[in-house]
Amino acid sequence: MNTQVKYCLSCGSSLIIKNVFGAERPACPVCGWIYFADPKVAAAIFLIHDEKILLTQRSYDPFKNYWALPAGFIDAGEDPRLAAERECLEETGLVIKSLDLLDMFSGREHPHGADIVLVFRAHLLEGQLCAGDDASAAAFFSAAELPPLAFKATQQIVQRWLGMQLK
Amino acid sequence: MNTQVKYCLSCGSSLIIKNVFGAERPACPVCGWIYFADPKVAAAIFLIHDEKILLTQRSYDPFKNYWALPAGFIDAGEDPRLAAERECLEETGLVIKSLDLLDMFSGREHPHGADIVLVFRAHLLEGQLCAGDDASAAAFFSAAELPPLAFKATQQIVQRWLGMQLK
Repeated sequence: MNTQVKYCLSCGSSLIIKNVFGAERPACPVCGWIYFADPKVAAAIFLIHDEKILLTQRSYDPFKNYWALPAGFIDAGEDPRLAAERECLEETGLVIKSLDLLDMFSGREHPHGADIVLVFRAHLLEGQLCAGDDASAAAFFSAAELPPLAFKATQQIVQRWLGMQLK
Repeated sequence: MNTQVKYCLSCGSSLIIKNVFGAERPACPVCGWIYFADPKVAAAIFLIHDEKILLTQRSYDPFKNYWALPAGFIDAGEDPRLAAERECLEETGLVIKSLDLLDMFSGREHPHGADIVLVFRAHLLEGQLCAGDDASAAAFFSAAELPPLAFKATQQIVQRWLGMQLK
């Protein structure tokens, strides 16, 4: 965890460390609030259209200018499939339908990254390609002309699934 | 969210509401910390042995005394497969190997529940059945003699996968 967890979110008291539910966790001695470090979860889209894969170019570090699947964080209570559809629209201008869960990756690749990435296979409904949000470009690529890929997860997804989905 | 998010975790200042990364979020005007409501994610185990499915009986409400897959929360930074193996050992005494991701469910069924449940198919390695942690019993059941099942997710997993895995 990067943030120092020192004060109670709910009442502002100083936290103490307690063994709760099998781990040492910051807990509030006044109101009983316990800090659980929940994983950050991202939803990513794997969309093949005309035998090409949809990728977005990152406008921020890490991996600025490298390419990745359209993806973004899922908030608490948000449906992962709807989060994937929302992120794809924001980053690429394309309206898609999230279908089955294709794959799952875990392990944070950088301090502001996701602990868990859920990758959904998607179907293109409509829209014009238009990069937005934290993507500087959005485009479709064939397996033979892939751009430099960000993240190990991006590379593994492409390796595992691109050939298989094109058959 | 159930907890009132009023004070900065890091410096204890009162939070204000700001539009950050596409949503209204509590943010600290002093140190810049932002509260992101991350989903609570659980890992669950789908283990078939001798044509029977492993289930645990819940010792707490909701659904006290009903049966569910062995499962528990994944902490930030924890490998989901290892979390599933750990929870299974704690709740059933069985050492298992988490294999592929079988299914994913989303939508919190009760206030202390998970937003996302990742279900891993597992292989039994060793151990003697012995309920522990928040399970009052652990047992294997055939499709014909299933006990009362907790949660919609449990029921759907059993409906979707039990017949298929027994074939």
